[in-house]
Amino acid sequence: MHLPTPTANYRVLGVDCGSHTTGYGIVESDGDRHRLVCSGVIRLPPKDRFSEKLLRIQQEIDKLLVTYAPGTVAVEDQFYLSNFKSVLKLGQVKGVVLVTAAKAGILVYEYSPLEIKSAVTGYGRADKKQVSLMVNKILCLGNLSQPFDASDALAVCICHIHTLSTRQKTEMGRSVNG
Amino acid sequence: MHLPTPTANYRVLGVDCGSHTTGYGIVESDGDRHRLVCSGVIRLPPKDRFSEKLLRIQQEIDKLLVTYAPGTVAVEDQFYLSNFKSVLKLGQVKGVVLVTAAKAGILVYEYSPLEIKSAVTGYGRADKKQVSLMVNKILCLGNLSQPFDASDALAVCICHIHTLSTRQKTEMGRSVNG
Repeated sequence: MHLPTPTANYRVLGVDCGSHTTGYGIVESDGDRHRLVCSGVIRLPPKDRFSEKLLRIQQEIDKLLVTYAPGTVAVEDQFYLSNFKSVLKLGQVKGVVLVTAAKAGILVYEYSPLEIKSAVTGYGRADKKQVSLMVNKILCLGNLSQPFDASDALAVCICHIHTLSTRQKTEMGRSVNG
Repeated sequence: MHLPTPTANYRVLGVDCGSHTTGYGIVESDGDRHRLVCSGVIRLPPKDRFSEKLLRIQQEIDKLLVTYAPGTVAVEDQFYLSNFKSVLKLGQVKGVVLVTAAKAGILVYEYSPLEIKSAVTGYGRADKKQVSLMVNKILCLGNLSQPFDASDALAVCICHIHTLSTRQKTEMGRSVNG
């Protein structure tokens, strides 16, 4: 995977795709310090046609890209769900996020649930509450209470920044040692 | 499912979603006669990022909507694929088709493979070759050879038109008899 070089105030938009509620979060990082820019959820009216729900997601993601100009989008690379219909619907939401980013010329990175949980909590099987607590700690949000979909999206951001930073340190190490 | 009332020269865009090749076809119908407007495939460069492939699909579908102004979009409602990754990718392509239609204010209808094959060949388990032969027959295309993805997309159009026409006849019957 080609990863961009993080610059000062590097911003990433994390998206936690869901067919009922899609969480989002933007984190800004200067490498050492991470700051919450915004987070929230896109709730989809249950009675709407699915194509209208997808349009709503596209419009909201578009608005976030225009308003906050993140350099990257990061999403969870789900690899298991129990039922076929859920996978297909999740895929449709993810497709819309990917195409919206591609249209804005922004690269998308995907991380497995294991990578995300490990990056945030140090434990690949952490539950949503543990992830949420660690997201609050890393971003200095105190006891901020927010939907799990939003904290999951912020966890994807942290995982992406962590991956960039690890790569950068490895390269610096290589350059010093070799 | 709410279905539109077919008018003279009613046009439907059928899409056969796929993560490597996506087939499309537009059929115009005045109720009794069906005419091919266009058909083809969107081939996606294997080396492109998946988000770029999705953008390509969106651009091509957009172009078809603007150029041929179909009144409806119809897609296959896949309900079984053997592997999780394929379902997720297919979902992403489908999500892009749905959101592109929704953005243009066009309703999307979905039909199961069984409905499509039954409408075109009278046999729910027909193979792609049988579907292709019947599509050619119904649209008076002679021995036209085209990719299965394109004839599958045309089959979705025929299924949609068939569904509209059946409903119309049922309602006329009801009105005559009731």
